[in-house]
Amino acid sequence: MPHKVTLALDAMGGDEAPTMVIRGAEHFLKSGKQARFVLFGDENLIKPLLNDTPLLRASCEIVHTTEVIASDDKPSLALRRGKSSSMRLAIDAVKDGKADAVISAGNTGALMAISKVVLRTLDGIGRPAISGVVPNRSHDRLMLDLGANSECSARDLCDFAIMGYAYARTVLGIANPSIGLLNIGIEELKGREEIREAASILKTLPGLNFSGFVEANSIMSGDTDVIVADGFSGNIAIKSMEGTAQFMYKLTKNAIKRSPISILGYLIAKRAFTPVRVKMDQRRYNGGMFLGLNGVVVKSHGSASRVAFAHAIEEAYRVVENRVNERIIQELNRLMPELKAAAQLPKPEALSANKMEESAVIA
Amino acid sequence: MPHKVTLALDAMGGDEAPTMVIRGAEHFLKSGKQARFVLFGDENLIKPLLNDTPLLRASCEIVHTTEVIASDDKPSLALRRGKSSSMRLAIDAVKDGKADAVISAGNTGALMAISKVVLRTLDGIGRPAISGVVPNRSHDRLMLDLGANSECSARDLCDFAIMGYAYARTVLGIANPSIGLLNIGIEELKGREEIREAASILKTLPGLNFSGFVEANSIMSGDTDVIVADGFSGNIAIKSMEGTAQFMYKLTKNAIKRSPISILGYLIAKRAFTPVRVKMDQRRYNGGMFLGLNGVVVKSHGSASRVAFAHAIEEAYRVVENRVNERIIQELNRLMPELKAAAQLPKPEALSANKMEESAVIA
Repeated sequence: MPHKVTLALDAMGGDEAPTMVIRGAEHFLKSGKQARFVLFGDENLIKPLLNDTPLLRASCEIVHTTEVIASDDKPSLALRRGKSSSMRLAIDAVKDGKADAVISAGNTGALMAISKVVLRTLDGIGRPAISGVVPNRSHDRLMLDLGANSECSARDLCDFAIMGYAYARTVLGIANPSIGLLNIGIEELKGREEIREAASILKTLPGLNFSGFVEANSIMSGDTDVIVADGFSGNIAIKSMEGTAQFMYKLTKNAIKRSPISILGYLIAKRAFTPVRVKMDQRRYNGGMFLGLNGVVVKSHGSASRVAFAHAIEEAYRVVENRVNERIIQELNRLMPELKAAAQLPKPEALSANKMEESAVIA
Repeated sequence: MPHKVTLALDAMGGDEAPTMVIRGAEHFLKSGKQARFVLFGDENLIKPLLNDTPLLRASCEIVHTTEVIASDDKPSLALRRGKSSSMRLAIDAVKDGKADAVISAGNTGALMAISKVVLRTLDGIGRPAISGVVPNRSHDRLMLDLGANSECSARDLCDFAIMGYAYARTVLGIANPSIGLLNIGIEELKGREEIREAASILKTLPGLNFSGFVEANSIMSGDTDVIVADGFSGNIAIKSMEGTAQFMYKLTKNAIKRSPISILGYLIAKRAFTPVRVKMDQRRYNGGMFLGLNGVVVKSHGSASRVAFAHAIEEAYRVVENRVNERIIQELNRLMPELKAAAQLPKPEALSANKMEESAVIA
């Protein structure tokens, strides 16, 4: 019998925990996938919910916890004092080999801080990054970092590029994914220094398909498979996109509701909109993986619905099933010597003082 | 007879110059507004176009120029060598009092660099910012900086806040606009240090309605009137929003075109979509003002259509008509003493080493 994937759930994380977590896991199992779950949380709350979730009840165990990390707890405090919390124990289960991955909709900062301390980063990686899938006119693309590190060095950006490359090859199934750096223009002199420096390093790596800078308006319409950003810019970009999509939905919905005639027209045309709805369905993009750790950690939106949480579970499942972390380590081993050599060289296109001045004016 | 507004146009700037510029000015005049135009550019190209634009022909003069700053020219080069270019001479006209404002769809970096050198910044302002209007569920909002400065100090962000406040009061007509700082979370510990420091200064200014941090998904759906960002993040946000809106339009359009039934439904519901189309019409948001200069400079998208360019002209017209720069100077005089006092004080909530560590972990 093949090894069945075991997933640790922080049952107490998220706005509507534990209900949403339990129902999300049931929804995941209904799709036909096989997995075992370990639920970390208050069994007095969880047990009654399992009466309505027969598939989950048949394939889970509960680890009773009473402590919860709140969404506004400070990460350092959560790290020191939350040692018997549902989140911490769920991460510990991955570290101890009792689960293959952990999924939490709880406090992002705490989840990252505890994951870093408990699981440690992969050899050669300084900082983990949060990755997420974004819609695109053809196939889905990967973007990272979405908010783990608000400032990044050129080297951090290069690490993210390698991790993203490995992820896109394995989980998204793209043979030789193109890698771009998010910037405010596509010209070489544009943007912040660390981004220009990362570009000058990445383009010397023969093993990586680096395609230059990407502007934010091309994320969804362009051809770049992996978009690399510092966590601040990545977070701004992903939230701007989410906000715009939601805003346009609401505007359109309100417009249609305004008259019976337009409701009629909408009902007639409705089926045509199905592919649009599917492509832009934010629930489908729920689940950001923390790349760069010795273990699989997936973060769900705190406000995720049952269906969205099931997507986060599926993300973790696919990452485990595709042995993404092993593949990332392979890619790191392949590309790290190149990266280290390139990063230690004097920058191939070091900016002269004159060029620096120009870029300050442009940017 | 009241003074008629005089607008200098860089007729050679933009992807389809001078045609688009000339037709844009004609479109503006057709709305019934009165203005005089000075067209800087190649008269051999401009004169034939005026045959089709009778309103513009009756209210313009041409200043013949042969030199053009290309869209990929380096700003420092444009500054040194472009002294008889259409862009440079149009800016000079503002400096010399021959025009009230200049509008260009040319090279942004060059336009900013030349404007800074020719017009100088307002007293007390270190760096100008590019501002732009963004759609929102209720009234339009202002966002700055959209790309002039890729790195900003806390003090720069405070300057932008004051300029944005004055602009929103005068041009957008909001009595006491609320000011927010774009950040990756609304908690005090989130984001980059300069943003947290700017927040700690802004909240001590009694004359400014500071409302804290704004996440990028709330720009269109939230209540903040003026969103302040460094030019890098602001550019990422605005382009992400533009890209998403365009992407969703295309998806929807393609979906409707797929079958006669859905075309029929669309035609029936079409009128209901008019408010959505109007609100999201990117042409309406064309025209970014360079705030913080001794003179009015408005930048149009390089790929602007005739209608979009007319909006950029209207933006400049409204800024001149509302004496925005005078009002900004008034606000600066009112708020600068407060700002200087606050900025020189030890930070009211200086982060301890411990807090710094927490914030690094979070974000």
